[in-house]
Amino acid sequence: MYYLAVRQFARTLKNLDAILEKTQAYARARNFDVNNLLSERLFPDMLPFVSQIRTACDHAKSASASLAGKEPPKHEDNEKTFEELRGRIAKCLAYLDTFTAQDFARTGPELIVKLARPAGKGLHADEYLFGRQIPNFFFHVTTAYALLRRAGVEVGKSDFLGPLNVVDAPA
Amino acid sequence: MYYLAVRQFARTLKNLDAILEKTQAYARARNFDVNNLLSERLFPDMLPFVSQIRTACDHAKSASASLAGKEPPKHEDNEKTFEELRGRIAKCLAYLDTFTAQDFARTGPELIVKLARPAGKGLHADEYLFGRQIPNFFFHVTTAYALLRRAGVEVGKSDFLGPLNVVDAPA
Repeated sequence: MYYLAVRQFARTLKNLDAILEKTQAYARARNFDVNNLLSERLFPDMLPFVSQIRTACDHAKSASASLAGKEPPKHEDNEKTFEELRGRIAKCLAYLDTFTAQDFARTGPELIVKLARPAGKGLHADEYLFGRQIPNFFFHVTTAYALLRRAGVEVGKSDFLGPLNVVDAPA
Repeated sequence: MYYLAVRQFARTLKNLDAILEKTQAYARARNFDVNNLLSERLFPDMLPFVSQIRTACDHAKSASASLAGKEPPKHEDNEKTFEELRGRIAKCLAYLDTFTAQDFARTGPELIVKLARPAGKGLHADEYLFGRQIPNFFFHVTTAYALLRRAGVEVGKSDFLGPLNVVDAPA
């Protein structure tokens, strides 16, 4: 289950990267600087686009590391261009790809994942994954998507979900 | 795992309902008809607020039913007010509350969940849950949240996540 979640984080980030690539093509076609989108916000007290992407990556990264009992790498928040932001996603994907199902073989609901805040507190593994990391991850990916949709980028739900492994269903 | 996902859908819908209640209070304080928000869209070809909520509910409902091998109840898309929309969430929550862990005791990755489209096709249970239903569910909840944030409703991440079961972490 924990590994399934990590693989889904990776898939969704790959889908997001493909959406960013379409956004770059859109900006070229409409003749504007795609980097103008980095500071876009849905409301003035919300995080800008660049931070939505960074935060989505960090939730995927820290969930994977914490549930496997590892220390996640630090990725600096210093991206100034769309290309660098896609690099941030690539770094996160490369890290997620280091995990195998075996890394989570000893992870169970009794594991307590420490929280940065409040100090001395934590969440049991399942609460951490389902109550905090999955909602947070999709929150930031969807908010980034929303900012691009509002800007007119022509993407849809199939870009967000990406290809699914469809099989024949029994009659 | 499947039951955990169902419980998380329910928690997130409860959080969403509390956000809708705050939105009603906000509309009263600012002296506008809260139902004006029902038709709001982030972009003209996106679903309006009312449909974001209905769709989130339907993804939670059909995921729970499909993974338990049950037939979900049909909830008509006829809500015309915020209060009716909160009723839609309440109906969905009541349905989700009928499930127990036992309902998913025989559900495993080999189960194929039939898709409405394309006909004759389906997804294995884990692909269905992690690749389709969880991303879709949070996509629509977050988009609804985004529409309310854009309208100035004073809610934040803690409303979206709701209370978490924080425990003492080992030193």
